[in-house]
Amino acid sequence: MIKGLIREMVDKYESEFKPVKNKVSETLQISDYIDHTLLKPDVTLRDIESLCAEAIDYRFKAVCVNSCWIRDVVRFLAGSPTKKAVVVGFPLGACSSEVKAFETRWTLEHGADEFDMVMNIGALKGEDYDLVMKDIAKVVKSAKGNAVKVIIETALLSTKEKIAACVIAEAAGATFVKTSSGFAGGGATVDDVSLMRFVTSPHVKVKASGGIRDRETAIAMIEAGAERIGTSSGIRIIAEE
Amino acid sequence: MIKGLIREMVDKYESEFKPVKNKVSETLQISDYIDHTLLKPDVTLRDIESLCAEAIDYRFKAVCVNSCWIRDVVRFLAGSPTKKAVVVGFPLGACSSEVKAFETRWTLEHGADEFDMVMNIGALKGEDYDLVMKDIAKVVKSAKGNAVKVIIETALLSTKEKIAACVIAEAAGATFVKTSSGFAGGGATVDDVSLMRFVTSPHVKVKASGGIRDRETAIAMIEAGAERIGTSSGIRIIAEE
Repeated sequence: MIKGLIREMVDKYESEFKPVKNKVSETLQISDYIDHTLLKPDVTLRDIESLCAEAIDYRFKAVCVNSCWIRDVVRFLAGSPTKKAVVVGFPLGACSSEVKAFETRWTLEHGADEFDMVMNIGALKGEDYDLVMKDIAKVVKSAKGNAVKVIIETALLSTKEKIAACVIAEAAGATFVKTSSGFAGGGATVDDVSLMRFVTSPHVKVKASGGIRDRETAIAMIEAGAERIGTSSGIRIIAEE
Repeated sequence: MIKGLIREMVDKYESEFKPVKNKVSETLQISDYIDHTLLKPDVTLRDIESLCAEAIDYRFKAVCVNSCWIRDVVRFLAGSPTKKAVVVGFPLGACSSEVKAFETRWTLEHGADEFDMVMNIGALKGEDYDLVMKDIAKVVKSAKGNAVKVIIETALLSTKEKIAACVIAEAAGATFVKTSSGFAGGGATVDDVSLMRFVTSPHVKVKASGGIRDRETAIAMIEAGAERIGTSSGIRIIAEE
């Protein structure tokens, strides 16, 4: 069944695709779009503390961290409206679905309220769509209504695979489709955001991430339909306003 | 207490370090050393099937894969003596200890018999040695006597940090210390293998991994004390014998 949906969407994309170009108002609060992100393996507790302090100061939408830091993030963000996003199965997406579901449950229990998971890219490439869908659905179920962003890792995918990834993520209940982990070479492009915006229904949001380091690029992503920007350069982007 | 052990070993390294240079016999079966490895996020089931068939043909010591493939590896290797190694918390080592322990338990239950975990590098850098040790100890406990290889990610560490990582891994019950994930830039060097061999007790083994693509390099690692080689180039290395 999912194969049929993918085929239909590929046909629709080939015959009807047109990128959106949203108008961005001059008063846009770009901080509302930013997931303030620090995912490198060698960051320390002090770096996480700074990240959270900056997120509060600059009113970023969320911080995004590896799961070993969630308890610290909860402590550092106490009383602020900043969302606490953790990555799941990151950055390869190749741990088992049960591991992803456990990481989601465990971090939810410890205060995470957004979940940026990596889809099973190898299973997508092998056209085991059933596995890809169940993998996402398990995380969605474990997240108990909180936002799940599905990283499809566009840099590794063909156009057809990008479309398939979006169709499956939507069918599995994703809140967002997200371009990149930032660890696979290549990051968000306007073309990929446009494709993802076109392919998914309006209730599914797009997060652009990977290599977004200045305001101009961030705005281009928002114009193309992104409703969230994942970046480590949030302060620089704000400073350019 | 662990701080004292680290300090002592740093002193000993600074005053007494001498690299070993093992004699390698001409009849060395290099395949006995090789973990035949495929960890990229976009490998498919077919690639995993080939990996296992090659491991049987060339009598490699183990295959090493991401945890989503363990059930397939068990099926493909049925009846062979090849070990079934999975990576844990890979490649960033920044998921929570509970997630690493779960991934170990889950893969053990599904047939894995070696576990290549990534240590918590950020906690090491922040000198939270207690967290680093407990993180490893939880995986060791979950592995129930099976080999645990602790990836210390040498490319991201100073000399003192490499020594600390080895001392902690040994104290936590690691079977191996392992140089690299292959995903952090930089891989195994003879100098790092020599350091790791010097710093750990004889019962702790050293695995060299990352960037080992020919027989000459593999032999150099074995001469420096490595008892296992992690590589995707095993067939090429054997062909050069």
